[in-house]
Amino acid sequence: MRTLRLLLLLLTLLLATAAQAADPLPSWADRPVKHAILDWLVAVTDTAGADFIPVPERIAVLDNDGTLWCERPEYSPTQFQVDLCRSLAARGAIDGEAMPFRAWFADDRKDLRSYGYDKAYEAMNEAFAGMPVSDFRDSVRAWIARTPHERYGVPHTDLYYPAMLELMRLLEAHDFQVWIVTGGIQEFLRSYSEELLGIPPERVIGTTDQPKYTVTADGTVVIVRGRDVITNGGPSKPANIEMRIGRRPVFAAGNSDNDEPMCRYAVTGKRRALALWIHHDDGRREYDYGKPGDLGDLCRDNDRAHEVSMKHDWNRIFAEGIGE
Amino acid sequence: MRTLRLLLLLLTLLLATAAQAADPLPSWADRPVKHAILDWLVAVTDTAGADFIPVPERIAVLDNDGTLWCERPEYSPTQFQVDLCRSLAARGAIDGEAMPFRAWFADDRKDLRSYGYDKAYEAMNEAFAGMPVSDFRDSVRAWIARTPHERYGVPHTDLYYPAMLELMRLLEAHDFQVWIVTGGIQEFLRSYSEELLGIPPERVIGTTDQPKYTVTADGTVVIVRGRDVITNGGPSKPANIEMRIGRRPVFAAGNSDNDEPMCRYAVTGKRRALALWIHHDDGRREYDYGKPGDLGDLCRDNDRAHEVSMKHDWNRIFAEGIGE
Repeated sequence: MRTLRLLLLLLTLLLATAAQAADPLPSWADRPVKHAILDWLVAVTDTAGADFIPVPERIAVLDNDGTLWCERPEYSPTQFQVDLCRSLAARGAIDGEAMPFRAWFADDRKDLRSYGYDKAYEAMNEAFAGMPVSDFRDSVRAWIARTPHERYGVPHTDLYYPAMLELMRLLEAHDFQVWIVTGGIQEFLRSYSEELLGIPPERVIGTTDQPKYTVTADGTVVIVRGRDVITNGGPSKPANIEMRIGRRPVFAAGNSDNDEPMCRYAVTGKRRALALWIHHDDGRREYDYGKPGDLGDLCRDNDRAHEVSMKHDWNRIFAEGIGE
Repeated sequence: MRTLRLLLLLLTLLLATAAQAADPLPSWADRPVKHAILDWLVAVTDTAGADFIPVPERIAVLDNDGTLWCERPEYSPTQFQVDLCRSLAARGAIDGEAMPFRAWFADDRKDLRSYGYDKAYEAMNEAFAGMPVSDFRDSVRAWIARTPHERYGVPHTDLYYPAMLELMRLLEAHDFQVWIVTGGIQEFLRSYSEELLGIPPERVIGTTDQPKYTVTADGTVVIVRGRDVITNGGPSKPANIEMRIGRRPVFAAGNSDNDEPMCRYAVTGKRRALALWIHHDDGRREYDYGKPGDLGDLCRDNDRAHEVSMKHDWNRIFAEGIGE
């Protein structure tokens, strides 16, 4: 009896493995874009083929907010920063009645727009100046643990898209270096990227302060947050990729016009690259806000860039049990 | 006869392998600092020991100029940049009679000091603005190929120290990620780091311009050099390590006070780290200019920091046949 059970278990495992081997992207529907991804992977890893890409050049860059996880109704890194400012205001470290904090706390987007979003973000960054970087990361972890997503009622980090996680693992299995290149706050993502996504901190490029070196009375070095901001959006993404990675990527994925320059950088090189536009067109399961201006034009003009319709190309948006 | 020869060859190979296994640092003299390195490596990779460091945290940062290769009589990246400015002046792109170029071309250090070295370096950086980053790297390669070192008469890149290359390989063999963190020009080093040193471009952190995104008429992305400079020296080194790597290193090596903050950062963390001060005290085989203020104080105050006397601790300074 025990032998039979063991045999059955073994058989189940074998079948599961076989199914996985047959389909490395189970969350993707059997449609053209899935085939384009799989065909491209075969072509660029075939040592005898014309499209072969040597391993050191296999750089993949993926946007985070809206590409790997849900970014609505509000960017999670922004929500976190506003909440951190709330706690600073509560203990008198900043004036919560003054602009732009008053508008941030009231979520008054009209006031924020007239104040200027860039300046409003910079003010939050300045409020964190002097905080040890490790404390900032701890604050993120604590915030994630206590803050469910307002629509789905689960921790924000449960809202990573299985389809994209499968794709990241598939790229890695083909010796790609996977980097996340986000307009969001670098240290926010780094607080969980290694544990949750398998992406170590050095492969996270985000909007970041220029940190500062300090030495305590006993001679110990503590790196703290600085005032200056280095933004990572739009044309800054490919520029920062050059500065930080030093190679043109051959895979890129994004969801907005903020990702267009990075995706264009990938698909206009000599190598046969692939770019994906994650198109938010599924108002029922998630949100519907994608517009052709995001990356649609690039997909139309360049045959290496492809649209991914979340509605049609993904069997599921989130892990089982979320948003159903 | 053929069998005997094969056997002899096999025996020779075995003996060579055994010798290497017995001594992974053959260019290092049998003295305390070599033992400190080897003992430390055993301790931090012993899974059962109190000093064990998990693989993801094994970050090693090494300065370049004066630590991995010869930096005298002048920094090679600076020599290259001055020569590149000479060619720009020759074709009228910059005014070679104006300051600071006049002083750079005459190697007039007094004039450069009164003009201000930072400003003088920034002027060179501005002269390169708009040049594709890939062209800049090509210029470096061409310069190295045609410019022998003034004392040793070999290409500058032949002047990497075998002792340090052995150490880098030994660290990698123990699953360390080796990063080069240099005050020199990032793209200079990147032009040969992968081929010559086995260090890919993303693991080179140096003084860098903030590059710019451009698009040609046919829609192709070209990243060009920008005007703004991000310096990487002294306290900026550990700050940039935090921004780019996102972890406190557990091994650091440097040769000047410019490396003190980075080495201090490594040795004042929770992990049992190791820092090395490459002390230039060998005027016969190389140059004698090290002073205790470089890293001597750190070595005196912190038992994780050790002095490496180039005169006494290294059997050889350069590869065979150079400077003998």
